[in-house]
Amino acid sequence: MQPKRISILGVGLLGGSIGLAVKSRINDCEVVGYGHRRSTLDKAIEIGAIDRADEGLSSAVEGADLVVLCTPVGLFRPILEEISGKLAAGTVVTDVGSTKRSVVRDAGQILPPAVHFVGSHPMAGSEKRGVEYARTDLFESARCITTPTEGTDAGALETVEALWRAIGMRITRVGPEEHDRLLSEVSHLPHAVAAALVAMQTEAGSKLAGRGFLDATRIAGGDGSLWRDIFIDNRDNLLSAIGRLKDELAQVEAMLKNSDAGGLAEWLDAAAARREELAREKLRELES
Amino acid sequence: MQPKRISILGVGLLGGSIGLAVKSRINDCEVVGYGHRRSTLDKAIEIGAIDRADEGLSSAVEGADLVVLCTPVGLFRPILEEISGKLAAGTVVTDVGSTKRSVVRDAGQILPPAVHFVGSHPMAGSEKRGVEYARTDLFESARCITTPTEGTDAGALETVEALWRAIGMRITRVGPEEHDRLLSEVSHLPHAVAAALVAMQTEAGSKLAGRGFLDATRIAGGDGSLWRDIFIDNRDNLLSAIGRLKDELAQVEAMLKNSDAGGLAEWLDAAAARREELAREKLRELES
Repeated sequence: MQPKRISILGVGLLGGSIGLAVKSRINDCEVVGYGHRRSTLDKAIEIGAIDRADEGLSSAVEGADLVVLCTPVGLFRPILEEISGKLAAGTVVTDVGSTKRSVVRDAGQILPPAVHFVGSHPMAGSEKRGVEYARTDLFESARCITTPTEGTDAGALETVEALWRAIGMRITRVGPEEHDRLLSEVSHLPHAVAAALVAMQTEAGSKLAGRGFLDATRIAGGDGSLWRDIFIDNRDNLLSAIGRLKDELAQVEAMLKNSDAGGLAEWLDAAAARREELAREKLRELES
Repeated sequence: MQPKRISILGVGLLGGSIGLAVKSRINDCEVVGYGHRRSTLDKAIEIGAIDRADEGLSSAVEGADLVVLCTPVGLFRPILEEISGKLAAGTVVTDVGSTKRSVVRDAGQILPPAVHFVGSHPMAGSEKRGVEYARTDLFESARCITTPTEGTDAGALETVEALWRAIGMRITRVGPEEHDRLLSEVSHLPHAVAAALVAMQTEAGSKLAGRGFLDATRIAGGDGSLWRDIFIDNRDNLLSAIGRLKDELAQVEAMLKNSDAGGLAEWLDAAAARREELAREKLRELES
């Protein structure tokens, strides 16, 4: 069922872009925005990302069919606690967090049985932050992971996936546990490594950094507090991924120490081939 | 002094692009290409990257004022040995290798005193390989590091730097030792890490990889044998850089284990700020 009123809690880059996309793609749907900075809310209204702003959480979710949590991951639990008693039976709640185990668990514990939670992770964004960078087409052709569990309401799942599809996204369903494990591999570890590469730079080295270095570290440019929340929330998986990276680097160290040219070439060629395959797969996906 | 005949030894992406750029930017200069595959040489002639092809090293350098080594780094020493006796007094030799200590040392040992070597590292390229990807503008606005030492002939240095400037590059002078140390930080380690991130991917994880992962691992897409040569040649510096990365990751592990949210946010914000600064510096550099 198409929502008549969507409440976006947290109107930054993602929340603002969801508002813009909903306003351009869904008819007769009011978008209410909650935020703690008046200037952000004013900006969101000005660019047409929300119809109405509310600085109170409880009033912001009043009468909403669909509530989307768009704050940093670390704020999901206190927000769920605050809005829990204010949601009408049948309200659907989702989120845009980069980790999914904790929010799915917390929502299950906190929300009343008649309110339905569905975890979402729209894989779009940028190293930019703030509603001033919001774009109507941010989600166009990007992937959205939904993380239903056995207890997820089928109608709520349909409502949430229909929202993401309406704004141009392709849906992939993955369980919350698996989501967090896989994302630590393809997103959280690469972020940590990019930040580490930047952190260890000497002044003299930086001056010689080229396009390759800038590409490899682009993801380190994001909002520190957003990523802190993600790292802390997914720390078991991230620690395990760092361990596996160190194993891989230990192999490289051994080959270097032994001047194992054959082994190095094989390892490098395999990585290059796998990277090319991955790029081709992504291209095919976008074209389909 | 402007060369009348340039011999390019190895006509791949870099060698081919140098040929194209020289033909379009320097008048009255013959470009001779050496390669061991006839099909590559034919292609290089067809696209206008070289005027004349030669499958013999000795004959390819005959009468050249300027010889540019464009093969993988591991072939520099045997090539220098083979051409050494064929070069006229006053010939200038340079290279395009990503490591500089070994070629500078080898050239000093192998070439006769009247032949002048200058180490070069044009920082341009792509994960593509082969003359079919050669481009006239590959070097436009990119940086070329030259690595003169106390023994470098001043006139030869001027000739080599004039070549790079003529095809659009900005020159930075750095000693060979420092070059290899700094490049291990900003290029060789990032390459190793990108390859490691790809190598450790599970099938399920890859399916969820987004634009961030593709950007972070783009540099892993290069030619394995080229990079093997670079890694082996610069293994002391690369091992030391891997060690420093592991120290950095150990800090992250400690913060994760202690759920040190404040420390993580600070570390991530510092990296993000440094990355943004770096991107701004590079932009300013390109605009100046």
